[in-house]
Amino acid sequence: MPVNDKAEALTHNSLLVENSRFLRACRRQAIDCTPVWLMRQAGRYMKEYRQLRECYTILEIIKTPELASEVTMQPINAFDLDAAIIFADILPPLEGMGLELDFVKGEGPAIHNPVRSAADIERLHETSPEESLWFTLEAIKLARAELDTRGLPLIGFSGAPFTLAAYAVEGGGSRNHAVVKSLMMTDPAAWHRLMEKLSNLVGQYLLAQAKAGAHALQIFDSWVGQLSPDDYRQFVMPYTRHAIDIARGAGVPIIHFGTDTNGMLELLREAGGDVIGVDWRIDLREAWTRLGDGVAIQGNLDPVALFAPWDGLRTRAQYVLDQADGRVGHIFNLGHGILPETPVENVKRLVEFVHEYTAV
Amino acid sequence: MPVNDKAEALTHNSLLVENSRFLRACRRQAIDCTPVWLMRQAGRYMKEYRQLRECYTILEIIKTPELASEVTMQPINAFDLDAAIIFADILPPLEGMGLELDFVKGEGPAIHNPVRSAADIERLHETSPEESLWFTLEAIKLARAELDTRGLPLIGFSGAPFTLAAYAVEGGGSRNHAVVKSLMMTDPAAWHRLMEKLSNLVGQYLLAQAKAGAHALQIFDSWVGQLSPDDYRQFVMPYTRHAIDIARGAGVPIIHFGTDTNGMLELLREAGGDVIGVDWRIDLREAWTRLGDGVAIQGNLDPVALFAPWDGLRTRAQYVLDQADGRVGHIFNLGHGILPETPVENVKRLVEFVHEYTAV
Repeated sequence: MPVNDKAEALTHNSLLVENSRFLRACRRQAIDCTPVWLMRQAGRYMKEYRQLRECYTILEIIKTPELASEVTMQPINAFDLDAAIIFADILPPLEGMGLELDFVKGEGPAIHNPVRSAADIERLHETSPEESLWFTLEAIKLARAELDTRGLPLIGFSGAPFTLAAYAVEGGGSRNHAVVKSLMMTDPAAWHRLMEKLSNLVGQYLLAQAKAGAHALQIFDSWVGQLSPDDYRQFVMPYTRHAIDIARGAGVPIIHFGTDTNGMLELLREAGGDVIGVDWRIDLREAWTRLGDGVAIQGNLDPVALFAPWDGLRTRAQYVLDQADGRVGHIFNLGHGILPETPVENVKRLVEFVHEYTAV
Repeated sequence: MPVNDKAEALTHNSLLVENSRFLRACRRQAIDCTPVWLMRQAGRYMKEYRQLRECYTILEIIKTPELASEVTMQPINAFDLDAAIIFADILPPLEGMGLELDFVKGEGPAIHNPVRSAADIERLHETSPEESLWFTLEAIKLARAELDTRGLPLIGFSGAPFTLAAYAVEGGGSRNHAVVKSLMMTDPAAWHRLMEKLSNLVGQYLLAQAKAGAHALQIFDSWVGQLSPDDYRQFVMPYTRHAIDIARGAGVPIIHFGTDTNGMLELLREAGGDVIGVDWRIDLREAWTRLGDGVAIQGNLDPVALFAPWDGLRTRAQYVLDQADGRVGHIFNLGHGILPETPVENVKRLVEFVHEYTAV
């Protein structure tokens, strides 16, 4: 089409994006039906992704903007989702700090030189996201070009300082996070230095993603629920807040997500975020009562419900929507990432059901 | 001593036990200071236990009443604890049902023939605890003989139906319990049959332990926090309640413990128990407000706090006690089992501190 028509179409589409269900819900504005996206919606449960993984490792995909952008679009092409999330991982920021990251087949992420002492923490580089995470920023630009033509928003994301610290110190996943919590309790000065470095990077990284084109930002504090509320308040909350404060400079909505956070929901809210993401361990009505009207809520279907026959899945999805009770500012999502063995057919039906059931 | 003196001493001691801090706290009666015991207080962090484990496997110790009783007494001999808990494991009841149980070094429990279908569930034996768990009942009698001379109470315990189902179906520990929850969501009829069998056994087993001499009973629902409140209400709560109702026939206090239960605390209470055990993920004051005055509370120090230097440990223990605020019916404990690498010296100081700090 002629240049002027193209420019006009893009302006039109950027208005569409700004008025998309997802972004309106983030701002707690009225919408035609509840928006839905799924954490880890681009991933192993899709055959398109598995095919790509036969040729490339996870890190190769993340670090090749064309591939990361392609994977970002896979679920958008397959389902009627209301937002895309850039394909990346929460751990690459740690690489830029000097940690050696690897994904071990069947075992998840591994860091070969974990942080265990004040000296280790001192050695962590203070890096800029433009330098060490350029590939995700580039992938955001490419995915934006695709999404703009459809009027769909793109979410950027980062791990929260505590969750990054958990991986950096434990050296991988952990059942009880005893090593990272021990460091926090044993050497508070070193801990605060670590969290200072991490929260600066997380804030800058989120900000850079918004500048590259992300319409919203999610901060994942996946393991924060391992802490007591009082330890969270003292050793973590100031740093999550610092990261969110930096990211707020971008002027886009921020989703603050954690699991196992029912004992500290109010504190999470205090740390910041326009949207609070909750897992399935709490009734949405109770979560909203505790959080108050000033925030939107994202969640909270148990990812395992997607393994149920349709009837069981529908009942559980309906329960979540009934709990939200049509309140303005609900974004339907899972309570944690979609599981690798999830049947694709159920994802398709779930997304359609959320839209149909909530249509006004 | 002469027979009559001995009988008199035992009567005197059984009065001491009935008026022990621990049992009085279970009944929400006033006491001189807060009682303390620690989940998994007999175990790998003690050198006496590690020495015994050089000669015997876990299952050999559990199945030899003299050894189980000896291990039960190890922490009682070392620390000023207010109750003993019989040394056993939550999984042997599954063996009696026909599941092949093993403890794999470094990996925890493994069940070689896990339950995956309605047919598997149908084949599970309905066994009596006197027949298949005689060794723990015998160990309780032996430990009682030792404890009676000291005026200390003994706690018996069992896994709750859901937690046993989780092991039976998953075949071991699990990160997200997707297999057991899938079975629950996919084949509700089979699930209800499984839970019926398990809840009968759990109830009978608890009852038998009280008859053998346990002064209180704890039901461990360690993995129940993986469920949404609504799934708990429908698929689990009736069976936990059934098990507790059977056990109540013994007339001894029942402690109902779970982790990650902050979204369903009220439901746990509804399922039963004189004492509700909570993990460290909630402030004790908030937990008690939600649970109301009608129950005692057990908890809730983060087990990792025992790795901190004394100052950090003391601060966190004091926080728990300040949250309980001297309310009648607080039993100090960890929020989950003590970790194998815990320094013994910290355990000793913690127990002393709880008594000193709360002395009236």
